[in-house]
This record gives sequence, structure tokens and C-alpha cells, in this order.
Amino acid sequence: MKSYYKTDEWSVIEEGFNPKMQEASESIFSLGNGHMGQRANFEEKYSGESLQGTYIAGIYYPDKTRVGWWKNGYPEYFAKVLNAPNWIGISVVIGEEELDLHTCKVSDFRRELNMKQGFLQRSFIAEFKSGRQIQVNARRFLSMAEEEIGAIRYSVKPLNFKGTLVLTSYIDGNVVNRDANYDEKFWDITAEGFKKGVAYLQSRTRKTGFEVCFAMVSETELNGEILKAKDQTVQQKGYVGYRKEIDVSTHDEVVLYKYVAVLSSLDHQAASLAENSIQKVIRAAERKYNGLFADHNTLWEENWSNSDIIIKGDPAAQQGIRFNIFQLNQTYTGRDERLNIGPKGFTGEKYGGSTYWDTEAFLIPFYLSTEPPQVARNLLKYRYKHLDKAIENAVKLGYKNGAALYPMVTMNGEECHNEWEITFEEIHRNGAIAFAIFNYIRYTGEKEYLAEYGLEVLIALSRFWRERVNWSDVKGKYVILGVTGPNEYENNVNNNWYTNKMALWTMQYTLESIDYVMHEHPAQYQKIIRKTGFRYETETASWRDVIKNMYFPVLEERGLFLQQDGYMDKEQRMASELPPAERPINQHWSWDRILRSVFIKQADVLQGIFCFEDEYTLETIRQNFDFYEPRTVHESSLSACIHSILASRIGEAEKAYELYLRTSRLDLDDYNKEVDEGLHITSMGGTWMSVVLGFGGLRIREGMLSFTPSLPKKWKYLSFVINFRGRVLQVGISNQQTEVKIIRGDQLQVEINGKIVMCQPAKL
Amino acid sequence: MKSYYKTDEWSVIEEGFNPKMQEASESIFSLGNGHMGQRANFEEKYSGESLQGTYIAGIYYPDKTRVGWWKNGYPEYFAKVLNAPNWIGISVVIGEEELDLHTCKVSDFRRELNMKQGFLQRSFIAEFKSGRQIQVNARRFLSMAEEEIGAIRYSVKPLNFKGTLVLTSYIDGNVVNRDANYDEKFWDITAEGFKKGVAYLQSRTRKTGFEVCFAMVSETELNGEILKAKDQTVQQKGYVGYRKEIDVSTHDEVVLYKYVAVLSSLDHQAASLAENSIQKVIRAAERKYNGLFADHNTLWEENWSNSDIIIKGDPAAQQGIRFNIFQLNQTYTGRDERLNIGPKGFTGEKYGGSTYWDTEAFLIPFYLSTEPPQVARNLLKYRYKHLDKAIENAVKLGYKNGAALYPMVTMNGEECHNEWEITFEEIHRNGAIAFAIFNYIRYTGEKEYLAEYGLEVLIALSRFWRERVNWSDVKGKYVILGVTGPNEYENNVNNNWYTNKMALWTMQYTLESIDYVMHEHPAQYQKIIRKTGFRYETETASWRDVIKNMYFPVLEERGLFLQQDGYMDKEQRMASELPPAERPINQHWSWDRILRSVFIKQADVLQGIFCFEDEYTLETIRQNFDFYEPRTVHESSLSACIHSILASRIGEAEKAYELYLRTSRLDLDDYNKEVDEGLHITSMGGTWMSVVLGFGGLRIREGMLSFTPSLPKKWKYLSFVINFRGRVLQVGISNQQTEVKIIRGDQLQVEINGKIVMCQPAKL
Repeated sequence: MKSYYKTDEWSVIEEGFNPKMQEASESIFSLGNGHMGQRANFEEKYSGESLQGTYIAGIYYPDKTRVGWWKNGYPEYFAKVLNAPNWIGISVVIGEEELDLHTCKVSDFRRELNMKQGFLQRSFIAEFKSGRQIQVNARRFLSMAEEEIGAIRYSVKPLNFKGTLVLTSYIDGNVVNRDANYDEKFWDITAEGFKKGVAYLQSRTRKTGFEVCFAMVSETELNGEILKAKDQTVQQKGYVGYRKEIDVSTHDEVVLYKYVAVLSSLDHQAASLAENSIQKVIRAAERKYNGLFADHNTLWEENWSNSDIIIKGDPAAQQGIRFNIFQLNQTYTGRDERLNIGPKGFTGEKYGGSTYWDTEAFLIPFYLSTEPPQVARNLLKYRYKHLDKAIENAVKLGYKNGAALYPMVTMNGEECHNEWEITFEEIHRNGAIAFAIFNYIRYTGEKEYLAEYGLEVLIALSRFWRERVNWSDVKGKYVILGVTGPNEYENNVNNNWYTNKMALWTMQYTLESIDYVMHEHPAQYQKIIRKTGFRYETETASWRDVIKNMYFPVLEERGLFLQQDGYMDKEQRMASELPPAERPINQHWSWDRILRSVFIKQADVLQGIFCFEDEYTLETIRQNFDFYEPRTVHESSLSACIHSILASRIGEAEKAYELYLRTSRLDLDDYNKEVDEGLHITSMGGTWMSVVLGFGGLRIREGMLSFTPSLPKKWKYLSFVINFRGRVLQVGISNQQTEVKIIRGDQLQVEINGKIVMCQPAKL
Repeated sequence: MKSYYKTDEWSVIEEGFNPKMQEASESIFSLGNGHMGQRANFEEKYSGESLQGTYIAGIYYPDKTRVGWWKNGYPEYFAKVLNAPNWIGISVVIGEEELDLHTCKVSDFRRELNMKQGFLQRSFIAEFKSGRQIQVNARRFLSMAEEEIGAIRYSVKPLNFKGTLVLTSYIDGNVVNRDANYDEKFWDITAEGFKKGVAYLQSRTRKTGFEVCFAMVSETELNGEILKAKDQTVQQKGYVGYRKEIDVSTHDEVVLYKYVAVLSSLDHQAASLAENSIQKVIRAAERKYNGLFADHNTLWEENWSNSDIIIKGDPAAQQGIRFNIFQLNQTYTGRDERLNIGPKGFTGEKYGGSTYWDTEAFLIPFYLSTEPPQVARNLLKYRYKHLDKAIENAVKLGYKNGAALYPMVTMNGEECHNEWEITFEEIHRNGAIAFAIFNYIRYTGEKEYLAEYGLEVLIALSRFWRERVNWSDVKGKYVILGVTGPNEYENNVNNNWYTNKMALWTMQYTLESIDYVMHEHPAQYQKIIRKTGFRYETETASWRDVIKNMYFPVLEERGLFLQQDGYMDKEQRMASELPPAERPINQHWSWDRILRSVFIKQADVLQGIFCFEDEYTLETIRQNFDFYEPRTVHESSLSACIHSILASRIGEAEKAYELYLRTSRLDLDDYNKEVDEGLHITSMGGTWMSVVLGFGGLRIREGMLSFTPSLPKKWKYLSFVINFRGRVLQVGISNQQTEVKIIRGDQLQVEINGKIVMCQPAKL
């Protein structure tokens, strides 16, 4: 596949102005810093197709759901991340003409996302209808060091005229969400004005009552000299700006510096929001663009030293993985346990910016490996704090006795999704939440997390599974009827192998965890018993009974775990037999046809094998991979990564590589023709796994790190960094050798290609 | 259950004004005449809760669907029957006060639906805030003889004052549908005015462009003398009326006669609609109220002589069955093959007034038995004319080769419904359409219908089933995966026994029909071959292969046909174990819980046994009934009737009677607490069947009528009328004997309690 963007190890580069790609590029070139995010909308006016997007973490609106056929148990509202006031706006006017790339003649257009330093740069020459030409060079970043600050440097050079340039730097609160269900307004402006040389605008979300204040300082230089003349203020309904008229001649350079503070009532009293924002932006402006950028840059250096993956010999793969890591780092920094990661991060409205099982199943390993434990711990605590709501959710669906069903999609712990086959039936998400606790402890060694938070969640999850199974007389086993597995191309099936496995494992792990907390943290154990009303004897006996008698669909003669009851009744076709014109099938086939087909959207049985790989022989893994992968159409962004890892595991290096490229360049090469809606942020954690767990062959077995690398043919060298139990390790893999260095912390035994090695701290 | 309405053999009577029951009573007291229908809204202003409803057969609007999660194959629009301009309105004003039962003090309120003569009568005394009292007596009917005419006689008597009474008789086009998805207006007024003493208003539906004209003549009498003074005209936007001021004293009687013609562009050129309406209503007014009513009455007499059922010894049952027959007769007269019968008929907006499989499965037997063949034939032709659309629908879902999938819900042949589990999966509807052809021929003997219309439909249906099955290697059989059976409390199941049976039977019946047409109507056969591209050799061979190798889920040791694969894996509970607080489960349980429960909404396996009863031994019928009925919650209005018939069949007379009361008084006693939304018109055909096929024990076997009656204990006598192969039979059943009289046509052999008897034409 020929890439639209230039391949570069540290940058994504677009050359030439391509309005048809504008919304896609707005996604690709998005910036974020954990606190907020900004699509690559233009600063100046743009009347062409564009999806305006400014998002502030944790600020959402409960939009009334649109439902065709209401089912009991559906939520009334779908929490949505909001398109917040536009803070980047700079209007550029010369004479009667306003700069607008949709109407000007554009040349020398170049856009670069510099991933190393975390900024967006854009330059172009625009020719107005009058023939006047200007050259523009715009750069911006969202500060990693000061997460409430964004800064823009916007340079304009007249190329062939003399005249008056009018620059208006503004904040515009008149914004909408494209995906609003009933075209409602989500924001009310609560304050706007000018104070101490700062323009500010405060907005409150309807219903949820979040308040956000944007405060802006604008400074203009002419040929390096600050223009002292006072700006004119411009105020309209929900719009505040500073306007400056500058007389310019050919080859002058006018540079506008725009500093914006974005504060929210999540972190500040609403009453002092405006004042705090003004103070904040004044201090930022004092630090100047270069100072702010230097601080920002330091943080990105740190980020990269913790998380960079180096691939030698394959620039496209190198660019792909860095793009993924860059996005993960700028989407979530782990500083706030109220936040989580939406499937599109800060790059689009789709999926409402809400939390899915993606976090636990695809992102936790990345953050565990590349950040101190606190970061992943905050993601776990997010769910811990939603436990009461998960229990309420289960009650709403008819469960009793403290069972918890975590929502499929959520912002504040309440279910947002309303498709019965997903909302009520895709219950395997409960398993992912249990597995994340296990994963956290396996990486960090912090088993006491169970006593503090984990066990309470596990008990509620096991109670759920206990109530959810039923005894089948004809099978003489417990069954789980009416579920949707990870493969959402099946609905309302019985005994989805993955779900049954997750249920069983959760109950087993809960039993182990109870033993541990009971013996190692008896006081905490008593507290948990009081809080949950847990009855040890009867509940554990009942779980053990289910564990012992759980039904699993299998096809023994072929060594297969069956995706669900009746899967073999389907017409057995291979994805390769599908005519290209019918792919992706979710765009070409009616839903019933997809459902009754053999085709699989994303790893399902294989997702289970991925989680519990050590329980299965290589032969079993291979048999299942060879059976399921050819039936898989990979129409979920979460599919290719798991398959790539398993392909690596069974030695199918080329298959693994093909699947890896698909996941790592999913957005850059827009495999699914939908990148205009935003990036697939959560699948990027899967991409990371397919390098580190796949090609790097990292596993944790009985508390020990192990590596069985197998690099794609093209790759000369691979290195990555791993946080593990108080150490930071650097792993370097070439065809000749695998080297593991401890770059922080004590020595550590690891297994490399089956041999146990003691790794020593590197001498710095 | 204590009935809210008074029990009377020929009337439904409400005594006392009960605003909480207003919407329910508006449904119960609805009038219709096949061409149009009118809920029992008050003529005078009513500011209380009310569902205004005037419906004109065949006039619909394609409302944009509301969809939460779009699936490929969904229709964009849902055709909806329209609330048409209000033609009954009469404003009654005395001094400053307007009559409004919501604000007046009401006494002596009485409302009667006279089913024998087909009119609605209402009387009451209203006291205004001023203390002034009037007595009102209102009567109206929709003419069966002149189906474009409605007439109202509205009498007002001042009881305790002298003053000026102002009556305004109007047509108001400013109406909305309560169920409009996006609160859109469905009508545009295209003309309004006054001409030749007639007020008229013409309205056009948006998108579909149907036009409807309402023309009104208003006449007023004071104490029996026509008031000659000319009415004042009143015109507002979309509103035309005649206003009259009358000086009245205590015990005067003012009577307003309102004659309205309702013509539509289905039957008239739009350009001449107004003129035709004016002519029509002038002629009607000349015939006067009493003349029109006499003509109307004659038609109702005829209706009752063709369809009445007499039950002696059980007034509630007698009232119930007459209410059902009355509604069926006033909903559909069979004069127009473009029309069909919505689940709510002309009594509410729910289900959009569209056509469901209800028509074929529950209504055809009633119309076949009580009307000349032409009526049922028109219902069949409705589907014949939609065949091309059904083929298009199948193409949209991926079928080829001329397969047809009839829509689940339709107005004009296009699918309206958009719930994948119903729209795409409830494919058994195709079976009902084939069965209706079979049923038509078995009642009428008109086998040549196959050559004319039937076979073309059957071939397309069999082609559908052929494409829809797939070969299961593991079962070594053809299977039908991913369907929803009649029991909609299961979705996306495999091998629904009923569906598989319907598929198999349809292919068998198609093969027989091909043989018949090929040999008896060779020219027509050639025509069908050319039209359908039918390939006899390959297609019939392929169908035979499926017929031979179709899979059916069974539980042999218990003699059970299994509702679907895996049904026995469910927790086996009985409906009687359900706590009353949890019923109906569709209002109390989340959808997933309903789906994975054993509970059945309506007959499913038993629906199949009902259709093909003669294929099964009494023992098999009993085993399946005893297994399924206790698991059935009867939360569809179409459930009790089938169960009642089978209960009669297996000699469970009391069970049959209990189920019969439930179906026959479903609306009168509002079992499901939803009669305010409209009546369950289509289930009324099921009620009729439960008397005639159930208690009457009517069957048709090898072309011969047979009766094996078994009356409920309470019943002294039952009689009903049957149209059969050119005869009309009157069947009278008492505990002593069953008597079959031929009241029209030649002698006929019938079987009564196993004995063959020759029935002679009755001497009149």
C-alpha cells in the first residue's frame, strides 16, 4: 500500500494541499496532552469540509439516546465527549480578503506532526483572488509540562504586496457536536470578557454542569519586534478576540503568539475558574513560546526514553509504531484516576469518548510497561470507583446479591450503550476487568492491590458469573446462554467459549485472591466481608461447583475450542474466498447474513488463547489459529494485533508481519476508510503488544520476564523498554542476539530463549 | 375479572364519565367502514387526555425511521397510517363558556357502541361553571352503504337557562400523529373554502402526495324545525366551519346534523376531488340522517347474517365474540385489493396501520368463512402485487435467483420495520403467505388461483427457502440458522422448528402446485416459466434434496418438537412460578433475561402443530401442548387463540375456555393494559378461530368440512356461519346435537363427530 503521508522515522508529513483528505488529516495530525486534545483544524478560517474538534478530558454531556425499539434496561442517555470552544482561531484579513484555504490558491503546503517533540507545524503559500500572496508558517503544541496550556506561533509574510494585515486571535464558544442526536446545544456561555490583557470565555455544559474557562493572551511581533500598540477587543455572543492592524510590506514577517489556558471545574472551583485561568495564561505568556516549548520538550524526551521502540531496517514500521506510541502518550498520562481512554482519544467524536473494555484488554499492558505503576493503577481505580454503579447496573438487569455488570460503554460508571446484543449480552467485558487486576499484579508485583481494591471488584464479578450461568439438565453442566463474545459478528449465542473461559477464570482467580487477602491482610479481609456481605462458605462452594462443572464447546477430534454452540453448523467458508467487492462485509452484507456466516470480526477464541496461552500446548494454539484466522475478516481495529502475536508465537513470522503492518499503520494508511472520524487510539495498545509480546516474545511466567523473540525478515534490530517490578529494562534484539539491560533498579533474572539469565543494572 | 363496560349481547356500554378511561374508551368505541375509521373522540372540545384519531384506508406517510444503531439492509422509512383532518368537530358555546367535559361538571354520562346497527351514541348532562346545564345526545356512524360518508346527529337541550347557543360545525386540518418520529408535519392543506353550502378542506400528504378532501354539510333544527337562517362561515388556517347562533330556552332541543364526505385520491382524480366531495355530500344530505342510517343498517344486517356467532348461556362470551366480529367487519370489507388490515385497524396509530403476517395467519380464515371468496382473494392479491418488491427486498439482503422475502411490516410492499432480529430474521412470515394460498384453495376449492397468481408467489418463496438453508456437515442435514420464530422472545436462534417446518412445507406445496399447473393449465405454466425463469429440472431437484434432508430439532424420548437448537439448555421454569409482580415479563425484565429464559411469548411449535395438525397423532399434540403451554406467558395478543384451539383439540375444555376468554375479551377487559393505544384487530381473527375451529371443531380434511364440537360447560348453544365452496352453512351446536344447515347453495357432505352426513339446503 502506497502511503499518502511521507515515511519518516519521527514525523508524519503531508506535502501538497488536498482538501479531500482534510478531515482524515485533521485526525492524523491531532495533538493532545492527557488534559485536552485538538484535531488539526486550521487556525485561520476554513470553509471547506472540516470536523472541528477540541476535547477536554472528563467533560461530557449525556445526550438523549436515539432508539428505534426500546428494550427494558436501556439507558436514557449516552455520555458524549464534547466539542469544546474553539481556542485556536486566528482570522487573517488583508483588505477585503480573509485567508481561507478553501477559496485561496494554495501552494507549497506542508504539514508535519513532529512526534519526537510533540508539535504540529504547517506552512503554505496562499494567493488571494486579488493576486496578493502570503506565506504562512504555523506551529502549535499542547503542553505536556503545563497541561492546561496550549500555545501557537503563527507567522505571516506578505510576498508581493504592501498593505494592512488584520489579525484577530479569538476564542469562539459557538460550537456544536456533529453527532448530537437531536441537534441540541450542549454548552451555555456563562462569562466572557477581557481582563488584565486576557480575553476569556467560560462555558457550562448543559445537564452535567461542567464549567470550562478558556483564557487567551495574544502577542504580535513584526520582524522580531513586539508590537506595543494595544489590540482592539472584539466581542460577539460567545466570542472574544483581540484584533490588530499591522502595516506590512513584502518580506516583512508578522508573528502572532497565542497562549491559551484551558481550565475546568474538574480541577478548580467554578467560581474561581476565570480568575485562575487568567493567572495561568499570564504566567504562561511570561514564559514565552520558546520557554513553554522547552518544558514541553523535556517531558516528551522523558516519554520517549520510557516508551520508544526502535525498529531498524523498516522505516514504515518504525514510523507506524512511533505514531502509535505518540498517540497513546498524548491521550492518557495517568495523572487523574477520573479519566480513561476513549476509542478515538481526543481525535474525534465517535464512540463518545467513552470507556470500553478496550482499556483493560488492549491498553493496560502498554501503560504497565512504559509508565510507573501509578498510571495503570489509576485505570484500575477508575473501575473500582465505578463498582457501585456496576452493581446498580446489574440490579437493573435483574441480578441480586451484589453481582456487578460493568457497562459496555461509560463515562461516569453508568451504561451508555443501547444495543441489547451488546449492552446486555457482551458480558465478557467483566472478564477483562478481572484480568486487568491480574495483569497489574503480574507486572508490578503489588499483590496488596487485591486487599486495597481488587478483591472487592473480583467478588462482585464472580457473583455476577455465578448468577449468570444456569444448569443445563441435558448437558449436565453449567452453561452461559445468550451472549455476544468479542466477535460481534455473532449475537445472542450460547456458550461462547471465550466468555465461559473468562467466567471460569475469574471465579478461580477470585478464590485465589480471597485466600491471599484472608491470610495476608486479615483486617482488610474483614472489612471487605462487612462491606460486601460476602459469605465465604456458601459462596466459594457455589463458585467451586460452577468451576468444576462449566461447559465448554469443543471439537475434540480437531483440537478446537468452538467459538460457540453450533458454530460448526455454519457453511464453512474462508475469508479469502470473499469477493473483494463484498469487503468489508460490514459495509456490504445485511446484518443477518453476517450473523449466520462463519466470518469472524476479531479474535474471539484466539483472544482467550492469547490471555491464557500457557494453559495450551503449541499444537493446540496452532490448530486453533489455523482454523480461526482464515475465517477472520479483521473488521475490528482490535483484531490484527492479537492474531499477529499468536502468529509470532507459532512461528508464522510472515503472517505476523502482515498483520502487524495492518494494525500499526491502520490509521496512517487508513485501511478501514474511516480515519476522518478519528484515530483508533485503543487499538494502538494492541499494536504495541504485537511488537513487544509478538516479535519481542515477552511473557511473564511465574513472576519472571521471558523473551522468545522472532523478528520479521526485514528487521535488523528491535528495541523496547519495559517497566517491571520496580525496574526499567531495555531490550535489544537483533538476529544475532537478545540483550536485556536494566536501566533503572536492581538486577533481575529473566529468561531469554529458554535460558535463565541474570541481568545487571547498566552502567550509565 | 370485573368488566369496566356493561355486559350486553349487542352493545358495549359505558356508564359514568371516567376521564382516566378516556383514551381506552376512545379505542373501544371506535367506528369504521373499511374506507375510514374514527376513534371515539368527542365532537365537542375536550381538553383532557385524548388520542385524536381519524384514519383513511391506504393513506400513509413514510416517516423517517429512528434508529439507534444502523444495520445494512434497514429501510429508511416506516410507512404510517395518518391521523387525518378532524371531521367530527362541533363547538358548543353558551355565553362565554365552551362545552368541554374536562372542565364542566358531568353527570348521567352514557356511551354505547351499538354493534348490531353500527353506531356510537353518547349522552350526558354538563353543568358549566356558571351553573347553566345542558343535556347532550350525540350519535354518529360511518356508512357501510356509502363508505365515503359519515354522519352525526348532535342534540343539545338547555336544562335551566335561556340564552344564545352557538354551534360551530367544522373540519380541522391541523392535526398531528402522536407517534411522529421527528415531530414532523405530515399534511399540507391544499384547498379550503365554501361552495354550494358545503365547507370543504383538501389536504395532501407530504412525500407520498395522497390527497384527501373532506366536505361538510351542516343543518340545524330547533324543536324539529329546520333553521333556515344562513350559517356564518368560519375560516382559519386549515380550518373551515359553519357557525350558527340560536336563541334557546329551557327544554328547547337543538339538533345539529353533520354530513361529511371523505374522498381520497386513491379513488378520484386529485383535480376533481373537491368537486366530487361536494357533490357527494350534497347527495348524502339530501338523503337525510335517517335515510343514510337505514341504508347503513341494511348492510350491517347483512354482515351479521353472514358472520354472527350466537353463544347462549354466557353473556360475556357472547358480547366478546360479537365485539370481535364487529371490529373485523368494520375494519376490512374486502372491496379494494390495495388495502389490508393493520394490527390496530382504524383504532390507533400503533404499528403504523401496516400489514403483518397477522393477516395471513390469523385473519384469512375469518374472511374466508364469513364473506364471499373475493374478499380473501383480495388479501391474497395484495401480496401477489407486492411480489416484485419482495424480490427486491431479498436482493437487498443478498439473495439471488428470484427469491422473495416478503416484508415483516409493509404498506406498499416495501419493508418498514428496522429491528434486525425481526426485519431480517423473522422469515417465517414467508411461510404464512404460502399457507394462505393453500388455505384459500382449501376453503373455496378454487385451485385455478394457483395458475393465475399463486404459483408465481410460491416459486419465489421456495427459491428463498432454498437459498436460506445451508448444509451442515456435522449434522449431515440442511439447517436454517439465525432466525426469529413466532415466539419473539427468542432472537437469532438456529433451527426454529416452526420455521424449518414452514420452509419444508412450502417447498412441498410448491412442487405439488407446479405439477397441478403444468398439467391443468399448461399455457399459464409456460407463461410463469418465462416470467420467473424457472428451471424445472434443477430447481425442483434441489428443493427435493432439501425436503429430504431438512433438519428438525426434536426430543424424541418425550415426543417433543424442540422450539430451536439448545432450547433444553435453558433453566426449565413454568410461567406459573413467575411472581405476579414480574408479569408481564416484557414490562419487568431486561431483554437479555427474557431471551435466555424458557418463557414463550406466543405459540411457536404449537403454531406449526396448529397448521399441520393432521400430520400428528393426538398423543404428539398433547405432549407438545403440555410441554409448551405452561412455559408460555401469552404476551402476544396472537397467543391465546391458538392455544385455545389446541386445548379444545386435546379435550382440555376448561383450559380452552380460560384461553378463549382471554382472547375474546382482551380489549374489553384490557388484559394487557394498552387498549388506549388501539384495539388488537388482527388477534380478533384468532378469537373467531378459537370459537369455530376450537369449540366448533371445524376442520377441512381432503376437501370435506368436518366438525368435532366441544362446548365449554357454561355454553348451552353455539351457532356460526361458514362460507364453503359456494355454499353458506349454518352450524348449530348444543350439548345434544350438532346441526348443519345449508342456507345458500347445494347439498353437501360433511363429517360430524366422525360420521359423514349429507346436509340439505334449508327451506326458507
